[in-house]
Amino acid sequence: MASTPDDFWSALFYPRAVALIGSVGEGKLGYYLLRQMLEGGFPPERLAVVNPKGQGAQGVAGHPSVADTGMPVDMAIVVTPAAAVPAVLEECAQSGVRAAVVITAGFSETGNVAGEEAIRDVVRRTGIRVVGPNCAGIVNTHHTLFPTLETRPPAGGVSLIAQSGAVGGVFLAWAKEQGLGVAKFVSYGNAADLNECDLLRYLADDPQTQVVALYIEEVQDGRAFGRALSACARRKPVVVIKAGRTESGRRATLSHTGSMAGADAVYDAALRQCGAVRAHSLEEMLDFCLGYTGLPPVRGRRVVIVTNSGGPGVLTADRAEEAGLEVAEPSPALKERLLAFLPSHCALGNPIDLTVEGTEEGYRRTLAAVLDEYDAAIALNIAPAYLDSVPLARGVMDALRGSDKPVAVSFLPAAIVASAVEYLRAQGIPNFATGERAAVALARLAEYYARREEVAESVWEDGAPEGARPLPPEPFLEPDAMAWLAENGVPVPEFRVARTADEAVAAARAIGYPVVMKVVSPQILHKSEWGGVILGVADDEAARAGFERLARIGAEGEFRGAVIYPFIRDAWEVLVGIFRDPQFGPVVVFGAGGIYTELLKDVAMRVAPVGREEAARMVRETRIHSLLRGARGRPPGDLDALADLIARVSRLPLVYPEIAEMDLNPVFVRPRGVLVGDVRVIRR
Amino acid sequence: MASTPDDFWSALFYPRAVALIGSVGEGKLGYYLLRQMLEGGFPPERLAVVNPKGQGAQGVAGHPSVADTGMPVDMAIVVTPAAAVPAVLEECAQSGVRAAVVITAGFSETGNVAGEEAIRDVVRRTGIRVVGPNCAGIVNTHHTLFPTLETRPPAGGVSLIAQSGAVGGVFLAWAKEQGLGVAKFVSYGNAADLNECDLLRYLADDPQTQVVALYIEEVQDGRAFGRALSACARRKPVVVIKAGRTESGRRATLSHTGSMAGADAVYDAALRQCGAVRAHSLEEMLDFCLGYTGLPPVRGRRVVIVTNSGGPGVLTADRAEEAGLEVAEPSPALKERLLAFLPSHCALGNPIDLTVEGTEEGYRRTLAAVLDEYDAAIALNIAPAYLDSVPLARGVMDALRGSDKPVAVSFLPAAIVASAVEYLRAQGIPNFATGERAAVALARLAEYYARREEVAESVWEDGAPEGARPLPPEPFLEPDAMAWLAENGVPVPEFRVARTADEAVAAARAIGYPVVMKVVSPQILHKSEWGGVILGVADDEAARAGFERLARIGAEGEFRGAVIYPFIRDAWEVLVGIFRDPQFGPVVVFGAGGIYTELLKDVAMRVAPVGREEAARMVRETRIHSLLRGARGRPPGDLDALADLIARVSRLPLVYPEIAEMDLNPVFVRPRGVLVGDVRVIRR
Repeated sequence: MASTPDDFWSALFYPRAVALIGSVGEGKLGYYLLRQMLEGGFPPERLAVVNPKGQGAQGVAGHPSVADTGMPVDMAIVVTPAAAVPAVLEECAQSGVRAAVVITAGFSETGNVAGEEAIRDVVRRTGIRVVGPNCAGIVNTHHTLFPTLETRPPAGGVSLIAQSGAVGGVFLAWAKEQGLGVAKFVSYGNAADLNECDLLRYLADDPQTQVVALYIEEVQDGRAFGRALSACARRKPVVVIKAGRTESGRRATLSHTGSMAGADAVYDAALRQCGAVRAHSLEEMLDFCLGYTGLPPVRGRRVVIVTNSGGPGVLTADRAEEAGLEVAEPSPALKERLLAFLPSHCALGNPIDLTVEGTEEGYRRTLAAVLDEYDAAIALNIAPAYLDSVPLARGVMDALRGSDKPVAVSFLPAAIVASAVEYLRAQGIPNFATGERAAVALARLAEYYARREEVAESVWEDGAPEGARPLPPEPFLEPDAMAWLAENGVPVPEFRVARTADEAVAAARAIGYPVVMKVVSPQILHKSEWGGVILGVADDEAARAGFERLARIGAEGEFRGAVIYPFIRDAWEVLVGIFRDPQFGPVVVFGAGGIYTELLKDVAMRVAPVGREEAARMVRETRIHSLLRGARGRPPGDLDALADLIARVSRLPLVYPEIAEMDLNPVFVRPRGVLVGDVRVIRR
Repeated sequence: MASTPDDFWSALFYPRAVALIGSVGEGKLGYYLLRQMLEGGFPPERLAVVNPKGQGAQGVAGHPSVADTGMPVDMAIVVTPAAAVPAVLEECAQSGVRAAVVITAGFSETGNVAGEEAIRDVVRRTGIRVVGPNCAGIVNTHHTLFPTLETRPPAGGVSLIAQSGAVGGVFLAWAKEQGLGVAKFVSYGNAADLNECDLLRYLADDPQTQVVALYIEEVQDGRAFGRALSACARRKPVVVIKAGRTESGRRATLSHTGSMAGADAVYDAALRQCGAVRAHSLEEMLDFCLGYTGLPPVRGRRVVIVTNSGGPGVLTADRAEEAGLEVAEPSPALKERLLAFLPSHCALGNPIDLTVEGTEEGYRRTLAAVLDEYDAAIALNIAPAYLDSVPLARGVMDALRGSDKPVAVSFLPAAIVASAVEYLRAQGIPNFATGERAAVALARLAEYYARREEVAESVWEDGAPEGARPLPPEPFLEPDAMAWLAENGVPVPEFRVARTADEAVAAARAIGYPVVMKVVSPQILHKSEWGGVILGVADDEAARAGFERLARIGAEGEFRGAVIYPFIRDAWEVLVGIFRDPQFGPVVVFGAGGIYTELLKDVAMRVAPVGREEAARMVRETRIHSLLRGARGRPPGDLDALADLIARVSRLPLVYPEIAEMDLNPVFVRPRGVLVGDVRVIRR
């Protein structure tokens, strides 16, 4: 009797009645869960305790089974011993319970894989849906539903999904301290049934959820995760912490491109492609949520700091610039406006320092004036103990109300500004822990709003629309690979293969001197290291001598001739590559070429395929972009052609599933057009 | 009547009696200062108020002048209007006051330069010493002395010097919240008399000060600052925030080297050379102080995380690795030891996860065991509300007591673990705000202890021991500059100058083909862009043709011939340069050469001169070091010769004060020896 998805979600988050299944004796988990639910305001008459002895607690009656409760139990909280869980779920399903939250630990995380499989089996057979096991419970503040051991946060618009219960606990505790309102919280533990993808899909449509905060350590299926995450992020911001960025996650690879890959870099690319906002600490995640739920959209990067003290203002300006905001001086016209009402001892740079004598009126009028010119403001007040900060908060508040631009507020230190912070929170305005954290939050918000329009979902579909094709057969030598690239629309230079010295001269003449000659032999993979590449061959004599040299080198194995190209100079050399990530599948890489590839670590990655616009963004993310735009007396490279090449290459691993890794290195970027200089393909 | 320095410092920090000079009416600054001093415990009978009407307040008697107080007033706090300050100081000096803290604002910071000069004049004439003006006061907890408007912190070993009073205020408020003990605090404001250098010199010898925290925005004299800072840092750690890292601080420069210079990068280098620890936020500064005063020395980078929950442990591990610590798995032997007493559901990686069932005994025995193998541990406890964390804190405490290695503790969330944190603090053990912040603090401490031995003070002496010499006269063409470098012991390739084609052939033969030929002409600075460099000249014919080509190019201006070098291949190309920083004087730069110099921003800097060991450290700081050590099939470069070259070059701007900037780019680093490939000198 499978329930529809809607049934299940309502049962989980808006149950008519809840059964707590397990022991509720004092000191037991069940005891604390029951207390939390009651203290959180869930009506006791819609709560039941179920355990073999039918023992209740804290005024809630106990029953031997769900069926005996006589309540419309939509959802069960399970804290029985692990061995009993499958049977308990079975009984729940038979009694019409559609959702269960299994807090009990001792499943796959301790090696009890069979127990977890048994849970899945019940899910498959009965249609009951399960959160957990080994989880820290759920919260729905808008249904006064708190079956969790973590702190009960105030109600609001942030929903948190956390693989780790403790991370959820810290976040919820901070949310309470800082007045951040929470809608739903789900600790999904081992994800025997419901996982982060299911939850993202639900929260995308949940009207109570304004912003989703997601903590993950790993995902099972990168593409499925990408689909769910990008669909959610198109509806509302998703702030993601992806933990576990260690060396050990890095896979051994064979190619140049692959060696640059680390699992974390791929996650980073994937999150970006989904339009998610990556946070690098819990504090940053909290600050983003505060900013998103408490401030209007941040529509640009020009920020101004209004402060009553120099040092913290300067520290905030530094961090704002580091985080990618612009901290430009006010225009002369704005300075003139400010001079009309500010005392002369105020500093009218950026930060604008009202000094310790800054007043309610000073904050109000200054902020009102600067918001006409800037995209956002940061209002700092570092209060000495003798100063009442409430009027200053009022000044900030008035300016805020008069504008549709964001003002991130940070009043400090906590012990001194408590009343002012309370006043601000009562009006829905967050107070950031420091000006620096306010600056980082604004920067992330600006990125979010700028990026939101760009996100393409198509990448997250599987496979190649035109169907998979085989690679040309082995040996797949350089001329074969170049021909194959050309067939696939990837620009390669004109080239010819010569099998004799006479052919070499004829080929070189046809291409036009100077030329490059390379040995062709299945035994010689690293041609340069064997002396198998001759650059700048200038005339017939050199071509003949060159061919003979290559023939001697090739004679070490099977000599298949020489491949002859035009000698390309005055081009920027870049790398375009492909590798397969175990979670996300094919990934395309762009970066600086030559010996600097690994040194620079100046690469941009995307889960493949990418379109031309996304490819152009990849190029813009790298430092080498500043050279490609034209630098050091050289004309700019053809960035349109480069983006087109990246986009075409990014589709190859989907069309040719045999490709494990591929390096195009160098790719020559010229003022008009791009050309592949060398190619290496590694098959699966 | 100048007092000796000792007199002055005792008067400032350990006054027998203090006069508060100015109005003390309710709501005035003087009123709050008086209240702070009284609440802080300064004996009222050793306090006097001085103002024209002789009005006292809060039980402290007022007098019309210091002389009338009848007390041995060693120190005065001045809050009179700015115009009165010089006369007040004069009267103080005449009455035997040896130190004054001028809180009054309205001097140079608002354009009143004359007022500040008048203060300096009194200092010069009378010998009274002044902190401020425009400052937030001072603190000496060990003398119950709190003439400040900021929060009164608990007594302890941290002394804080802050140019910004508000930064001091935030730090002191946090110190109180987090139980960080403070010895002295000085807000030195405009530094009309005493500045950061004076204070560093005093605190270096102050037995109450274990660690110095310094907040600066700028310094007047970089070398004097370096002398004071390095002398202090050799005695005790100095944590420095240098704020104001903005673009606008960057100077316009002419050379390749100079263009990489930003004022902040030079400060960064200088702080490193002084052995100071740079903090990038107030929170980081606080955490370092907590760690230094509360933990034993951190003697290595191998850290283990012991936690009772997965997620926060992983976040901590990530941050620890990012901050430069090693987070390696326990050895098999250690795992076996742990297995002997830990339940099987615990995870024995790194983090070691005791799970939510972690006990006092579990923490105690686990930490005791891991400290035998690791250099430091981080103990995390993410407490659910139903768990008493005090026993866990006791377990940690016991392990701590049994070892001389550091354990950084972070118990969370604050509201739940309050008693445990209180217990830890009572034993002198700090609690870090998060595991991530604990990790960064440990990393900084490890750096501090490792670096402490390396710091050389000699750089901070002025000038060249051997005396200044003039540069050779203009025109100072490439052969002249090469010869000059050689005279100064900097290795350059063999070279010859040819004035005719015949001379060119003879020179090339003498050097040995292939050679490089370059045009010599005072009009041609950018030789490559003019086609004035010919690489790989292979024989007599090519040498003759090459000379003729250079002669044609040179004929655009004054052709002085061709300089001929051996053609150096298979060498790594690096850059060594010199520029002058307005604060710190000559700076030496090392980095990747060629077109990648600016792209990579992969440079290490030091205030010049440096010795060979410091030069070797510069090389090791860069990413290109990984190539120079031998990579991609090429042998390692001669790093000893490179360090020697950097050290020699670093002395040149001191011996030759005419040098404004200098680029040696490229410098060829070969398996044996290094050679300068090109040189450019810009004179002042």
